[in-house]
Amino acid sequence: MLQAALYLIPVPLSDGPTSDVLPQRNIAIVGEIGHFIVENVRSARRFLRQCSRDIDIDSLTFSTLDEHTQPEEVAAMLQPLRDGHAMGIISEAGCPAIADPGADAVAIAQREGLKVVPLVGPSSIVMSLMASGFNGQSFAFVGYLPIEPRQRLRKLRDMEQCIDRLDQTQIFIETPYRNNKLIAELAKSLPPRLRLCVASNITGQNETIVTRTIGEWARAKYDYNKIPTIFLLYK
Amino acid sequence: MLQAALYLIPVPLSDGPTSDVLPQRNIAIVGEIGHFIVENVRSARRFLRQCSRDIDIDSLTFSTLDEHTQPEEVAAMLQPLRDGHAMGIISEAGCPAIADPGADAVAIAQREGLKVVPLVGPSSIVMSLMASGFNGQSFAFVGYLPIEPRQRLRKLRDMEQCIDRLDQTQIFIETPYRNNKLIAELAKSLPPRLRLCVASNITGQNETIVTRTIGEWARAKYDYNKIPTIFLLYK
Repeated sequence: MLQAALYLIPVPLSDGPTSDVLPQRNIAIVGEIGHFIVENVRSARRFLRQCSRDIDIDSLTFSTLDEHTQPEEVAAMLQPLRDGHAMGIISEAGCPAIADPGADAVAIAQREGLKVVPLVGPSSIVMSLMASGFNGQSFAFVGYLPIEPRQRLRKLRDMEQCIDRLDQTQIFIETPYRNNKLIAELAKSLPPRLRLCVASNITGQNETIVTRTIGEWARAKYDYNKIPTIFLLYK
Repeated sequence: MLQAALYLIPVPLSDGPTSDVLPQRNIAIVGEIGHFIVENVRSARRFLRQCSRDIDIDSLTFSTLDEHTQPEEVAAMLQPLRDGHAMGIISEAGCPAIADPGADAVAIAQREGLKVVPLVGPSSIVMSLMASGFNGQSFAFVGYLPIEPRQRLRKLRDMEQCIDRLDQTQIFIETPYRNNKLIAELAKSLPPRLRLCVASNITGQNETIVTRTIGEWARAKYDYNKIPTIFLLYK
């Protein structure tokens, strides 16, 4: 029987067979869990159906954890784990608790000394960093850039400084419909010698991970509109 | 036939079946590659044997890429890829090019417009971050702390500032035989309110990932001597 623990269950980043991006062990573990904390019940059910047709989805319990959930509600969701049952956290895409509300549930489990077990799965941050050719010994993920123009420009300057002074790769994301605008803006605002890696549709059919200098991006043709993309900056 | 590209092939972090931590697709891809760039030939051969008994290891070519390799040698290693053959990079443990010399080969491939394809696999950085309960929307991996005492203390102060000002989780590693000493040192040097996550032997039989306050670590009993461990710090 599966050990009682809070299993952190990564979800594919793109369409295609789950076995392409998840180890067999994940599928086996998922099939033994009865209680899930999820960001979105519909997509979690779809993911479980993809994992295995043997899972009786109607027998499972789902608690929704999103940015509207109150801390005391999160604590209550963990009751099955306290009672000795295995639980799973499923996020929308990629790894739970990385740029995702699941971290709150994990923090409570850790505080109460409950066992937490992360499973292997696709992380756009790690996969893009591997493929960028940039420094993997020192890097920062900064999430979204600020929207307000002056704050945004200041953030770009901060990132330049972290690259130069700390030799630190800078990783960030953008709302997909603004991808093209962001690249144009970076091409205009940053020194031409810096390198920008644009990693798009990772693990998907049309995955492209391309590193060019800012000067090259300024002259390049591209279209990343509405495609999930992650950006990396380095010297 | 496998597309000509530079495949970045993660390796398990611990003993046990590769299928527990690698997707089936990785095994299939590895079996179709004839040319590898590796950090250590012996452990790369062992890994390939674990992947599949059908691989004829003596028919493969291996180039060694480590911290002693010159840039022009790295460029020469990529010739099979330029000639239209699939190539793979295999690191010692975890993901190639993350805290690993493989990044140089990837950078050259990117510069020449050669296709780079990262595969899914275990990353101690991402897995420990997921399980820590810390901020996954903003984090930095800083590698090893400096050894020189004054520089080391300054680095701890820098990390404290990044936690407070940037709300940024700090992730770092230590030579495994110094793990216990490091924890004692952090317990003495850092504010008791900060939280330290110690993630040890990830994916292994005795995996433990424990988050406590610095004050709690100061009173805790632990022994991480010579066990691969990663450290995370947050408020």
